[in-house]
Amino acid sequence: MNFTIVLFVSMFCGLILAQDNATGATETEETGETKSSCPDMHDLLIEFGAMREKLTSVETRLKESENQILEQRNKERTKVIFSTAVAQGEKHVGPFNTDITLSYKRVITNIGDAYNPSTGIFNAPVAGVYYFTIFYTAGGNREGKLFLYKNNDLVVMTSDHITQYDGADNGGNAVFLQLQQRDQVYVRMAANSHVWGNDYYTTFSGFLVTQM
Amino acid sequence: MNFTIVLFVSMFCGLILAQDNATGATETEETGETKSSCPDMHDLLIEFGAMREKLTSVETRLKESENQILEQRNKERTKVIFSTAVAQGEKHVGPFNTDITLSYKRVITNIGDAYNPSTGIFNAPVAGVYYFTIFYTAGGNREGKLFLYKNNDLVVMTSDHITQYDGADNGGNAVFLQLQQRDQVYVRMAANSHVWGNDYYTTFSGFLVTQM
Amino acid sequence: MNFTIVLFVSMFCGLILAQDNATGATETEETGETKSSCPDMHDLLIEFGAMREKLTSVETRLKESENQILEQRNKERTKVIFSTAVAQGEKHVGPFNTDITLSYKRVITNIGDAYNPSTGIFNAPVAGVYYFTIFYTAGGNREGKLFLYKNNDLVVMTSDHITQYDGADNGGNAVFLQLQQRDQVYVRMAANSHVWGNDYYTTFSGFLVTQM
Repeated sequence: MNFTIVLFVSMFCGLILAQDNATGATETEETGETKSSCPDMHDLLIEFGAMREKLTSVETRLKESENQILEQRNKERTKVIFSTAVAQGEKHVGPFNTDITLSYKRVITNIGDAYNPSTGIFNAPVAGVYYFTIFYTAGGNREGKLFLYKNNDLVVMTSDHITQYDGADNGGNAVFLQLQQRDQVYVRMAANSHVWGNDYYTTFSGFLVTQM
Repeated sequence: MNFTIVLFVSMFCGLILAQDNATGATETEETGETKSSCPDMHDLLIEFGAMREKLTSVETRLKESENQILEQRNKERTKVIFSTAVAQGEKHVGPFNTDITLSYKRVITNIGDAYNPSTGIFNAPVAGVYYFTIFYTAGGNREGKLFLYKNNDLVVMTSDHITQYDGADNGGNAVFLQLQQRDQVYVRMAANSHVWGNDYYTTFSGFLVTQM
Repeated sequence: MNFTIVLFVSMFCGLILAQDNATGATETEETGETKSSCPDMHDLLIEFGAMREKLTSVETRLKESENQILEQRNKERTKVIFSTAVAQGEKHVGPFNTDITLSYKRVITNIGDAYNPSTGIFNAPVAGVYYFTIFYTAGGNREGKLFLYKNNDLVVMTSDHITQYDGADNGGNAVFLQLQQRDQVYVRMAANSHVWGNDYYTTFSGFLVTQM
């Protein structure tokens, strides 16, 4: 860099000489020929032009980087995480004579507000891969039987048989699902089955693993 | 860009002519009019000033981008992930005549060192949303009954009844929890209950999903 | 900035005066002293050099930021997420007279294509921490017994005893595992045990939590 400054100063001196003796002759470092100070100033202008070009390129690249950072930050801002429990009292929910969508009333976590506790339905706010997990406890005198649905498709399920001699049954399952925006995920409880309804046992949770 | 360089060179030539004939008249490529070289040099200086201004702006924006990248990298560096198993021998842990904090002795994974195997307590190193999951196996002759706590609050639980005829019971649960820095999460085993104590069945795992 | 432009213009005017009267004397706004235009032009060249230096530094920093953004984006592009179910018909898989690697035939999700449904083996495509979870349902007349392996090491397991009076057993487990590239994770079913083979109950899922 110091060399560059020295070079510029020498260009300038060439220019001053040109003014003084009106012959404008000097020797450039590059060619060894005597010539007008004009080429030195010419070099300066070329340098200036090159610098402008570089700056324009830097601006373009910086804009691109800023866009990528922004895109990344927007992705990060989209957080979707929920955990819920049935929470319908210290008693069983069900049995009913038809399958029902199970409504998990206790909202432990609902970042992004994608789970609706009044319907029991999770609505994907963005396209991406999500993780869902369900657990239940139910008395053994009848089945506990839960289905995890994506829109109208059964994805995974968990259940246990009726057993006269086993006081309670536990079950669970988990799945990673690729969803489109507005896809719905929810839990159905089978007709004639039941789950324990308190605040802590029968849960439905999920989160957005990655946007896609 | 080439056009710009040509323009500068023509400015300079105007200047040289001005020195030579002291009339300062030349013809620009753009307008075809003769005019003084003075406005050209003036333009150059304005261009130079504008370039300096642009560079200052680029520097400011770059600093901001660097800060955002750094912030992002710091977030990524904060990894908190653990998996543990009770690992207290090929026998049951419990029953005890009071609830106890269950200490999972086998550390399978403990990135971020937030789980303490000597106390069984997970301490949140940063505010954020965490995922926790527990699983147990226990002989059917008495309850297996586990509570997941956040500080002093019961969050979720899993248990099975005593059953004379069922040799073993399994259970599990999972939850996403928003934690403040230094919040504690741990598993309590109910009085008079037990879980199988080997290295592989009864586990407690968790990870930081996202800082908040 | 406006001040700077004014300064440059005054420099330029000094230069023009120098050309006109060959004495090169003018009055600067800053000092109020008459002096040669030479130091002003000298300042301009120093300014120009400083600007070039700044631009070079900006370019270097921008390159570094671009590299960090690219590194981040490459990490994000590496997505590994799978969910599978045994899906070998509405019947039990097993019992066999030896342990077998359980092949989950139904691929619900397989982003990154790291799970091979024909072998049942997950191959870690990159070093990192992964999460795995298994669930099963099995008839109670014999054991359901599954082992999660990392290469040749048992990591976690789940099983239930044979019970004459319990129609079905459920079990599950989960673990966060630090893997090297090409580490293999898979589920073994114990000799003489079985799991229910339909599309929805007995599942094996996992995802890359973070590269390391």
